[in-house]
Amino acid sequence: MAFELHERLQADTIEVCDLELCKVLLMNDENYPWLILVPMRENTREVHQLFKDEQYKLMDEISHVSAVLERFTEADKMNIGALGNMVHQLHVHVIARFKDDPAWPNPVWGAKGARAYDEEHLQALAQSLRDKLTN
Amino acid sequence: MAFELHERLQADTIEVCDLELCKVLLMNDENYPWLILVPMRENTREVHQLFKDEQYKLMDEISHVSAVLERFTEADKMNIGALGNMVHQLHVHVIARFKDDPAWPNPVWGAKGARAYDEEHLQALAQSLRDKLTN
Repeated sequence: MAFELHERLQADTIEVCDLELCKVLLMNDENYPWLILVPMRENTREVHQLFKDEQYKLMDEISHVSAVLERFTEADKMNIGALGNMVHQLHVHVIARFKDDPAWPNPVWGAKGARAYDEEHLQALAQSLRDKLTN
Repeated sequence: MAFELHERLQADTIEVCDLELCKVLLMNDENYPWLILVPMRENTREVHQLFKDEQYKLMDEISHVSAVLERFTEADKMNIGALGNMVHQLHVHVIARFKDDPAWPNPVWGAKGARAYDEEHLQALAQSLRDKLTN
C-alpha cells in the first residue's frame, strides 16, 4: 500500500519537501518555527519498528533538519520529539525554541492554540526552508 | 574533561546502567515508566552536535531502550523526546505511555508533579530494567 499522509498532519501543516526517507512539513503556527518529519512508510508507529537502515536515515534527516532550522532561525534550543499519542502515524517534531517564545521553557505541545501564518508568509517561509534543506 | 552527569538529572533519577554511548537513568516518578538516556559526552546540547557515528549509536540505544521498555510495560505508546530547555546536557526521554496514565494524551513534561516510588520498588524496577537492557 502506498504511503499516505495522516489527515490531521495534512490539516495542520504545509509540505516543505521530501527527503530520502521523510516528508518534511511546516506546522502552520507562527508561535514557533516548527517542522515535522514523517517517514514515508506505511503502518509504522514507533521508531523501533523501522528497519535499522531506516533508523539511521531518520537520524540523518533529524540531524540535518535540526541543524538547518537552528541556523536559519538562530534558535536558543532545538526540541525534538516523537510522541504520536493522538496521530498514529510515526512523525518527529523538530522545533526551534526561544527564551521569549510563548511556551518557554515548557514543551510546545498542548501549550497554546496554534496561530496561523498569513498565507503569503507561510508560503515564503516554506520556500526558504525548502531551499535550505535541499541544497 | 571527564563526563559528569548534570545535577538536576542526578537528583530526579537513579542509575540503571551504562550502554556504549549513554548512561540510562530511571526517573523517580511512578506516574510513568520513564527512562532517560544521557550520551556520556561533555559539552553537547543538541543531537546534531554529536559525531555521525555517535548519532547512529544514539539511535541504536534509543531504539533498544524503547523496544525493551515497551515490551516490559506493555505500553500503549512510546514517547521519545530531546528537549533540554532547562537542563543543558543532552538527554533523551523514553517514556512508556498508557491510555489511562495521568497525562494521556498530552505529553508528560510539565503535566503533573512527580510521585516518587517507594525505595524498595524503585530499586527492584531499576534492577529489572538493568537485566532486560543489558542481556
